[in-house]
Amino acid sequence: MAKSKYEYVKEFETDDRMLRNVYVLVRIDGKGFHKFSQTHDFAKPNDVRGINLMNHAARCVMHELDDILLAFGESDEYSFLFRKSTDLYQRREAKIVSTVVSLFTSAYVYYWNDYFTDLKRPLYPPVFDGRAVLYPSEVEVKDYFAWRQADTHINNLFNTSFWALVEEGGLTPKAAEARLCGTDSKDKNEMLFTEFSTNYSKLPAMYRKGSVLLREQIPKDADKDAIIPTLPETLPGSKSAKVIPAPGLQSGPDPISEPASEAPSGQSTPISLDSPIVVQETVMQENSSNSSSEGKKRSIDANEAEQQDVEEGPAAKKEAPAFKRMKKGVVIDHIDIIGEKFWTGRGAYILAPEKKKKLRS
Amino acid sequence: MAKSKYEYVKEFETDDRMLRNVYVLVRIDGKGFHKFSQTHDFAKPNDVRGINLMNHAARCVMHELDDILLAFGESDEYSFLFRKSTDLYQRREAKIVSTVVSLFTSAYVYYWNDYFTDLKRPLYPPVFDGRAVLYPSEVEVKDYFAWRQADTHINNLFNTSFWALVEEGGLTPKAAEARLCGTDSKDKNEMLFTEFSTNYSKLPAMYRKGSVLLREQIPKDADKDAIIPTLPETLPGSKSAKVIPAPGLQSGPDPISEPASEAPSGQSTPISLDSPIVVQETVMQENSSNSSSEGKKRSIDANEAEQQDVEEGPAAKKEAPAFKRMKKGVVIDHIDIIGEKFWTGRGAYILAPEKKKKLRS
Amino acid sequence: MAKSKYEYVKEFETDDRMLRNVYVLVRIDGKGFHKFSQTHDFAKPNDVRGINLMNHAARCVMHELDDILLAFGESDEYSFLFRKSTDLYQRREAKIVSTVVSLFTSAYVYYWNDYFTDLKRPLYPPVFDGRAVLYPSEVEVKDYFAWRQADTHINNLFNTSFWALVEEGGLTPKAAEARLCGTDSKDKNEMLFTEFSTNYSKLPAMYRKGSVLLREQIPKDADKDAIIPTLPETLPGSKSAKVIPAPGLQSGPDPISEPASEAPSGQSTPISLDSPIVVQETVMQENSSNSSSEGKKRSIDANEAEQQDVEEGPAAKKEAPAFKRMKKGVVIDHIDIIGEKFWTGRGAYILAPEKKKKLRS
Amino acid sequence: MAKSKYEYVKEFETDDRMLRNVYVLVRIDGKGFHKFSQTHDFAKPNDVRGINLMNHAARCVMHELDDILLAFGESDEYSFLFRKSTDLYQRREAKIVSTVVSLFTSAYVYYWNDYFTDLKRPLYPPVFDGRAVLYPSEVEVKDYFAWRQADTHINNLFNTSFWALVEEGGLTPKAAEARLCGTDSKDKNEMLFTEFSTNYSKLPAMYRKGSVLLREQIPKDADKDAIIPTLPETLPGSKSAKVIPAPGLQSGPDPISEPASEAPSGQSTPISLDSPIVVQETVMQENSSNSSSEGKKRSIDANEAEQQDVEEGPAAKKEAPAFKRMKKGVVIDHIDIIGEKFWTGRGAYILAPEKKKKLRS
Repeated sequence: MAKSKYEYVKEFETDDRMLRNVYVLVRIDGKGFHKFSQTHDFAKPNDVRGINLMNHAARCVMHELDDILLAFGESDEYSFLFRKSTDLYQRREAKIVSTVVSLFTSAYVYYWNDYFTDLKRPLYPPVFDGRAVLYPSEVEVKDYFAWRQADTHINNLFNTSFWALVEEGGLTPKAAEARLCGTDSKDKNEMLFTEFSTNYSKLPAMYRKGSVLLREQIPKDADKDAIIPTLPETLPGSKSAKVIPAPGLQSGPDPISEPASEAPSGQSTPISLDSPIVVQETVMQENSSNSSSEGKKRSIDANEAEQQDVEEGPAAKKEAPAFKRMKKGVVIDHIDIIGEKFWTGRGAYILAPEKKKKLRS
Repeated sequence: MAKSKYEYVKEFETDDRMLRNVYVLVRIDGKGFHKFSQTHDFAKPNDVRGINLMNHAARCVMHELDDILLAFGESDEYSFLFRKSTDLYQRREAKIVSTVVSLFTSAYVYYWNDYFTDLKRPLYPPVFDGRAVLYPSEVEVKDYFAWRQADTHINNLFNTSFWALVEEGGLTPKAAEARLCGTDSKDKNEMLFTEFSTNYSKLPAMYRKGSVLLREQIPKDADKDAIIPTLPETLPGSKSAKVIPAPGLQSGPDPISEPASEAPSGQSTPISLDSPIVVQETVMQENSSNSSSEGKKRSIDANEAEQQDVEEGPAAKKEAPAFKRMKKGVVIDHIDIIGEKFWTGRGAYILAPEKKKKLRS
Repeated sequence: MAKSKYEYVKEFETDDRMLRNVYVLVRIDGKGFHKFSQTHDFAKPNDVRGINLMNHAARCVMHELDDILLAFGESDEYSFLFRKSTDLYQRREAKIVSTVVSLFTSAYVYYWNDYFTDLKRPLYPPVFDGRAVLYPSEVEVKDYFAWRQADTHINNLFNTSFWALVEEGGLTPKAAEARLCGTDSKDKNEMLFTEFSTNYSKLPAMYRKGSVLLREQIPKDADKDAIIPTLPETLPGSKSAKVIPAPGLQSGPDPISEPASEAPSGQSTPISLDSPIVVQETVMQENSSNSSSEGKKRSIDANEAEQQDVEEGPAAKKEAPAFKRMKKGVVIDHIDIIGEKFWTGRGAYILAPEKKKKLRS
Repeated sequence: MAKSKYEYVKEFETDDRMLRNVYVLVRIDGKGFHKFSQTHDFAKPNDVRGINLMNHAARCVMHELDDILLAFGESDEYSFLFRKSTDLYQRREAKIVSTVVSLFTSAYVYYWNDYFTDLKRPLYPPVFDGRAVLYPSEVEVKDYFAWRQADTHINNLFNTSFWALVEEGGLTPKAAEARLCGTDSKDKNEMLFTEFSTNYSKLPAMYRKGSVLLREQIPKDADKDAIIPTLPETLPGSKSAKVIPAPGLQSGPDPISEPASEAPSGQSTPISLDSPIVVQETVMQENSSNSSSEGKKRSIDANEAEQQDVEEGPAAKKEAPAFKRMKKGVVIDHIDIIGEKFWTGRGAYILAPEKKKKLRS
C-alpha cells in the first residue's frame, strides 16, 4: 500500500517519556504580555479582570487534568504541579506540555468576553509557551512555589511603588525607576505609606500573594459542569459528561468584590472556583464557613477514593460523614505558600505519600 | 535576598535544544475532535467551515513564525516545517512546540465565529497537542509530507464512501463499515460512481488532497495586517506592526467555489491566504493569473532578501522586476505534494540549500 | 586563526546532564562473555578466578569514584550506585558511564594475570558496555538491588543444576535443559540434594548471592595504594597519592576460603577488599572481628567527615573513638540485600539523608 | 515469581536511541594523561610507542565495528565516524559510546607490553572517557576532522618548540612558555629552524598530522586475525571467526626498525595495518609517492560489496579486477584531511551516498 512506503518517517520520532516517580511541574508564560496588556489597557499595576481570566483558564486546566494537585499563578505565568505517579500520556513530555498550554490558551480566549465585557475578543490572539521541569523531592517542590511567590511579592511591591509614583506622584516612568533604584522592601513600604497613604499589607492578597488553586471539598450542588462548558471525555481523566449551555455567563457583575479584611491564613477563605467567580460568591461564603471549621482536615472526593485508604491519619476517615454533601473541587485562594504552614495545613494532601501500587506502576 | 535562596530550583531545568542543521517538523493534533465535531454538528465527511478555520489558524502560525517554510493540514491535524537553520528560541523544543500549539489554538478559538457564524464561540474550549520531529534530509521531508497526504487520500475516500452509504444509502454505520471492509481504492471509487453518481476525482481538491500553505508572491496591496489582527512584535520574526480592526470579517460567502477542473500544477492557482479566504477571491484570481505565467519561478520578498543570492538559477534574479508590485506572503493551495513535481516546482524553495553562513551559525 | 573557523562543530554537542537529586545507577555488562568464558575455560557453573577478577575491577572503580556508595556484582555484570547529590562531571551521562566502563575494563585486563596466573593476558581483549538509570526514591534503589540479587539466585540455581546434570550426571546439555524445564526452585534444590548430594544452601555465598561492595571501616594500616596501583589524581575524588609497585601481586593462592558457615547478617564478615583478596585474609579476619562487634553501627572516615553530622542517630558519633585506628575503605561481602535488614543495618549509610547544603548545590 | 515483583525498576530506563540518518561521531579522551605520560616517561614532545599503541587500539575498534568509516587520532584522543545508516545497537547512545570506550581501553592495556616492552603492564590502569556527537551533513563531518587536525598542528608545533627550548635550549619550562607567548606559526617555524636546525615540515607526518584510519584494499593474505587476536563474534558486525595464537606478539623487537620489505603491499598503496604499526614508517613514505598515482581510486572489498553499485564513478568498477587478490582492511596513514583533496580522493567512500534501502531502514 502507498501508505506503508512512507511510514518509515515515523521512526524519526523520539521517545520523550519523563522519568517516573518524580513531580512534574509545567509552567506556562504569556508571550509578549507587556505589549498585550498595553494594547488592551490593563489597569496598572494589577488588572483584576486579567487576573481573574488567568485564574479561570488555570481552573479549566485543573478540571480537565485530574493529576494536577496544585497550581499557582502570578502576572502572566502559571505553574501546575502533577502528582509523582501521574501516567498521563505515559508521561510524554511534549504531549503533556502542549496539552496544558493549549488548554490554557483556549480557555483564555474562550472566556475573554466574560471578563473583558466590552470587547468581544482580544485585539489579536494571545499566545503562551510552556515547559516541564522535574522535581524529585518534596523539598524542591516547596522551594519551587516559594520561589514563585517570592517573585510575586518582589514584583508587585516594585510595580505598586512604580505606578504610585507615576500615576499619583506625576513622575515620568524614567524618574520613577530612578527613585526606586537601590531601595529595599522596607523603603518601598514606607514610601507608599508616607507619600501615598497606602498600607501595602492591606492591598488585596490576590495582588500581593498571587493565586493558589487547590483541590478541596466544595458543596455537592456546585456543579462545575453546569457552569463551565468544558471538554467532554476528550482528555484523560475528564469527568465532564454533558455540556450544558452556560446561561449565566454573560451576567457577570464586577468581580472585584474582594473581601477587604483578609482573614488570617488559618481561617482563610477557600473560594470555590466556579465561573465566573463572582456568580458563586454566596456558595463560597457557605463553603468558607464550612471550610473554616474543617479547614485543616484533608478532603477526598469520590473520584479519588482509591487514594483515601493510603493516606495517613485516621482523622481523614472519621471526618468523611461531616462532608456528606461535599465533593472534591478546585478552589482558589491567595495565601502564603512560602513556609511550612501551608504544606502541613491545607497543602498537606499535595505531598502526601502515594499508594505503593501506583509507585510501581 | 529572599529570592536567591530558592532560585536553585531553576537548576533542575534541562537543556532541550534540538540538534542543529536538521529540519524541525511540528505536528499538532486536535484532542477529542471526533466528539468536538459531533457536538458542533460538523458536516460529514467534510465541513468546509471547519477546514477553513483550521487553515486560518495555520496561516496565523506561519505569519508569526517566519522560519516555517511549509505547512500541510488535513482533518484535525496540521504539520509545520521549519527551515534547517532556524534558531528560533535557540531551537529549544518545548518552547517551539508549545508556541506553535498555543498560537494555533488561540487563533482557532479567536476566529471561530468568523466561520461558525451562528455560534459566538464553541460549546467548550477546543484543545490541540503537538510534538516535534527532526528530519535530517530532504528525502525524509518529502516522504513525511507524502505520508500525510497519502493518509488524507485514504481517510477521505473511506469517509466519503462511508457517509454516502449512511446518509444517502440509508445504511447503519455498522452496516456501512461492514460493506467497506476489505475494499480497496478502486472498489470505493466504483461504488461511489455507480451507486451514488459521485465522481470522486471531481470532489473538491481541498477534501481529497488537504491544504498546503506556501510562501509565495502575493500582490503588494494585499496587506495581511489589515485583515488578520495578529500578534504585534511579540513573537520572534513577527513583522506585524499595527493592528487594524477587521471590518470585512463577517461577510464571508460560501467559500467552496473550488474550480472543478484542477489545472496542471504548472498553472496551478496559488490562493492568497487572506481572511476569510472567500473575501479575497478576486485578489486571488489576479494573483493566480500572475502566478500562472510565472508559476515555476521562485519568488522572494524583501524580508527574505538575504536568501536570494544563494538560491540557484539566474532566473530568480531576472524575474524580480516582474514582481515589482508583489511581496512574499502565505498562500494556500490543494495540490499534490506526493511526487517530485511539487518539490522541483512550487516547492523548490523549501528544500533549496541555505546560505553557508546560516549553516555554521 | 584556522582553528576557530571549524570550531562551530562543537555546537552540535548536546548537554546530557542528568536530573539532579536522584540516584544514579550505572550497570555494566560483559559483551559476549558466554564466548569469552568458553574460550578461557571458565569453570562451570562458577569460576572463582573470574568472579574475583570482576570484584577486583569493581573495587578499583569504587576506589576512584568516591561518590559510589554501593556496588553489586554477579556473573558478567556489575551495578554501581552513586549518591543522589553527586556532581561528578556535572552529572554528564556519557562522561560518567564511559568513565565507569573504561575504568572497569582497564582494571579487568590489568589484573587478569593476577587471577589467571597461567595466561599473561586474555586471548583477546574483553569488552563491557554500560548504561545509566536514574532512581528517584529509596524504594526503587532497594528494589533494584533486590531485582539483581533475585536474578543471581535464579540463574545460579539453574546453572548449578544444569552443570550437575551435565558434568556429573552425564546428560547432554539438551537433555539437561529438558530435564529442568518447568521445575521450580524447590524441585531443583531437591534434585541437587537427592541426585548429587549437594546441599545448595551450603554452596559458597559468593555464588548464590553475588558480591556486595560497601564502604566501611578498615584498619588504618591497610593502605589500598600500597596494594592496588591505581590512577593517581586523575579522576575526580581520587585520593591515591603515590604509586607503589605491587610486589605481592603474583603470589595469589586459591582465594576460595569461603567461610562455610555463613554467619547471620548481623555478624557477617565484611572482607576488606585488598588485592589479591587472599593476601589480606589476615587483615580481614581482624577487621571482621572488629566488625562483628560493631557491625551495625555506621562508620565514616575522614574524607567523608562532612557527612557525619547530618546522619541520624547519636550512636554514630559515640562510636567514633572506637575506630581510632580505622578508616573508611571498600569492603566486600556476599550477603542478602533483598529485604529491609540490609538497608537498616550495614547498608543504612547508603540511603541516609544527605546534607541539605548538598541538595541545593 | 520473586523476580517479577522487582522488575518494574526496569521501567526507569530511558530510550536513548539517537536520531536516524545522521553521522554518529564518537570521540574518546584519555583521563589524566598528562600525569600518565609523565609517570611512564613518555618521550617529549611525542612518544612513538604511545602513539602506536593508541593507533593499535583504534584499529581494534574499527576491526570490531564495521560501521566505523574513518578514525582520526592525536595525542590522547581518538575520533570515530560511524556511517549515517548505522543501526548498531539500534543507535542506543550509551551502548555505542560505552562499547567504543571499553574496546579501546581494553586494547590499550592488552597491547601495552607490545609497545612498552620493558614494562609488563602500565603502573596503573589507564582510563578513557567518551561521548557521541551527531552531525547531519557532510560539511560538518569534514569540518569536524579539519578541526581536530588543525588542533593537532597547533599543539604539535607548540610542543615541539617548547621542548626544543627546554631540552635543547636549556630553558626552564616557565621561560620556554614565556618565550613562546604571542608567537604565531611562522615565528615558531623560524625559531626551530634558526635556533635548533629543525625543519618542522620534515618531522614525521605522524606527529604533525595525527593518524588517519581508513578502510581500503589490503593484500588478501594479510590476515588481520592472524596478527591481532580480537573478539570473536561478540560484537555486531565482527567477522573474526577464529582466534589464532599470536606467536610474534611476545617477540617484540624494537619496533622502530621497520622491516622495509613488507611485501605484497606493493601496488596497493594503502598499507595493511599490521602490528606493531611502527614497522611501516618507510613503507608509508613509499606509500605517499604511490598514492599520488593510485590515490584517487576507491576500493571496496567483498564484505561491503553491496555498497559498490551505489557509489558513483565508473572507475570504481573498472578497477575491481586489479584488486583480485585484495580485500578490504583497515589502513593507517598520516595525511591531510583538511581540505577537499582528501574527501574527493581516498576519503571519497566515507561521505558517498548510501543505498536507499539503508536510508529507509
